Amino acid sequence: MGNGATRIGIGDDGAILSLSSQSELVVSTDTLVEGVHFLPRTDPGSLGHKALAVNLSDLAAMGAEPKWVFLSLTLPNTDENWLEAFSSSFLSLADRYSIELVGGDTTRGPLSLSVTVLGLVEKGKGLLRSGAKVGDKIFVTGFIGDAGLGLQEAKKVVPADLAVLERYLKPVPRVQAGRCLEGVASSCIDVSDGLAADLGHILNKSGVGASIQWEKLPLSSSVKIYVKCHDDWVFPLTSGDDYELCFTVPKAHLGKLAGIQNELSCTVTEIGEIEARKGLQIYLNGKKIELGRLGYQHF
Amino acid sequence: MGNGATRIGIGDDGAILSLSSQSELVVSTDTLVEGVHFLPRTDPGSLGHKALAVNLSDLAAMGAEPKWVFLSLTLPNTDENWLEAFSSSFLSLADRYSIELVGGDTTRGPLSLSVTVLGLVEKGKGLLRSGAKVGDKIFVTGFIGDAGLGLQEAKKVVPADLAVLERYLKPVPRVQAGRCLEGVASSCIDVSDGLAADLGHILNKSGVGASIQWEKLPLSSSVKIYVKCHDDWVFPLTSGDDYELCFTVPKAHLGKLAGIQNELSCTVTEIGEIEARKGLQIYLNGKKIELGRLGYQHF
Repeated sequence: MGNGATRIGIGDDGAILSLSSQSELVVSTDTLVEGVHFLPRTDPGSLGHKALAVNLSDLAAMGAEPKWVFLSLTLPNTDENWLEAFSSSFLSLADRYSIELVGGDTTRGPLSLSVTVLGLVEKGKGLLRSGAKVGDKIFVTGFIGDAGLGLQEAKKVVPADLAVLERYLKPVPRVQAGRCLEGVASSCIDVSDGLAADLGHILNKSGVGASIQWEKLPLSSSVKIYVKCHDDWVFPLTSGDDYELCFTVPKAHLGKLAGIQNELSCTVTEIGEIEARKGLQIYLNGKKIELGRLGYQHF
Repeated sequence: MGNGATRIGIGDDGAILSLSSQSELVVSTDTLVEGVHFLPRTDPGSLGHKALAVNLSDLAAMGAEPKWVFLSLTLPNTDENWLEAFSSSFLSLADRYSIELVGGDTTRGPLSLSVTVLGLVEKGKGLLRSGAKVGDKIFVTGFIGDAGLGLQEAKKVVPADLAVLERYLKPVPRVQAGRCLEGVASSCIDVSDGLAADLGHILNKSGVGASIQWEKLPLSSSVKIYVKCHDDWVFPLTSGDDYELCFTVPKAHLGKLAGIQNELSCTVTEIGEIEARKGLQIYLNGKKIELGRLGYQHF
């Protein structure tokens, strides 16, 4: 893994960043708007965490080591307690990955946040959406559906537990897993809009199809109970905000994947296989099921 | 000048960018919010231009060659005519400098724009605010005060001409001048908040003071007339949005500066000198004048 250094951080017209010659730069940016990406009056502590986490999740999906972050904060007023809680949470997550805040600005206006993260991958080794091949196995990290259930809890639609609420409010970006998957996975994406929609992006970019087995989906007991009570089998496939990684592994690399299990910092579960036939086929108890709705569309 | 290449642009979780080993990365980000940084109902064509121009101006102030841009657009509704006018103007300015749009997102919400630009400088050659030394001459590109007059015209406070309105709505970033000043200027900043405030940043960062002669300020005839009619001598020093460059040149490099005049694509005017005594002294007809107000403070 190549690395980088900060020549000039905050305090000039821009930041100047230095990369080693073995590295390529990976950049991702996300804007979060109150009422669209997060509920009004969201706790600033969870917002500070989430604003950075969702961007780190994008870098994780490319196998990158996060290095630098820019934060543009638009605030309706100067509430020092709010700012303190937000910043402390944002910077604490940044510290965990040794990420440096090197620029940004603060503006008055309706509450929104734009975060740009920069990371590094070894030259030519970044994980893309476009590399899946017929016969590759499909995996997902951690558990899916928890964050969607947490969102409903946050909206008080359903009674749920604090664990799923935490998964919605403070997602853990799979940075370590993403980095370990370099040279192992043939394609990767993070699950932000729902597994079906995001796996769909891999299929489209790779020009392939896939079948997955519903029974294999890694579901927490909370999600299993929700699905059963509401007879909503589609929920885990269309529920967003989990920020897990969905990736494909060629059969020849399955041994490698087994070898790095302990380094991933999370579980990985095989859920299906890439096929030549276009589209996503979902099987439940051996029968094909149809998705009534797709993942969340932001705009 | 080193260069860079786009390995992956729009369409994955992030962009992957490749730099030559002679280059360092320069990154700047700016958020523009309706009602704060631009007037409500601003023409989308000028907004698209300005959103990119103000960011290019930051790169220019560091002597960087702009290469890549990320645009996050938050819009209250999907007005296709608006989007078309905005994008066409944004992309036309990007094309002029061969800048590639490599990422971003579109979100629903109150109108605002976050732009992140990435550029390249030769390793260790970026222009900083901190390099001014006692005895260096102070220069400014183009003309100052026009954009401030244009803003008043846009608000219909004073009658002005279309030329100054254009300077406010469609500032020209001094990209070419910034790149030529590498190895010539000892410090540089762009004039966004007003000459006095921005030169003040150079003085603070460099730990020096300065004196400037008011009579030497490069003023258009519109600004001269405004100053005279309103007896507002402070106006050209505190008026923002010009996006000219203010820079310092060691006496030993004045010959170099004279040699590159034709390559700068704009005039440069000497307005004063760096001094050991801290603070900014302003002289008008040999008498020291005081600034009643400083440049525009965003927040």
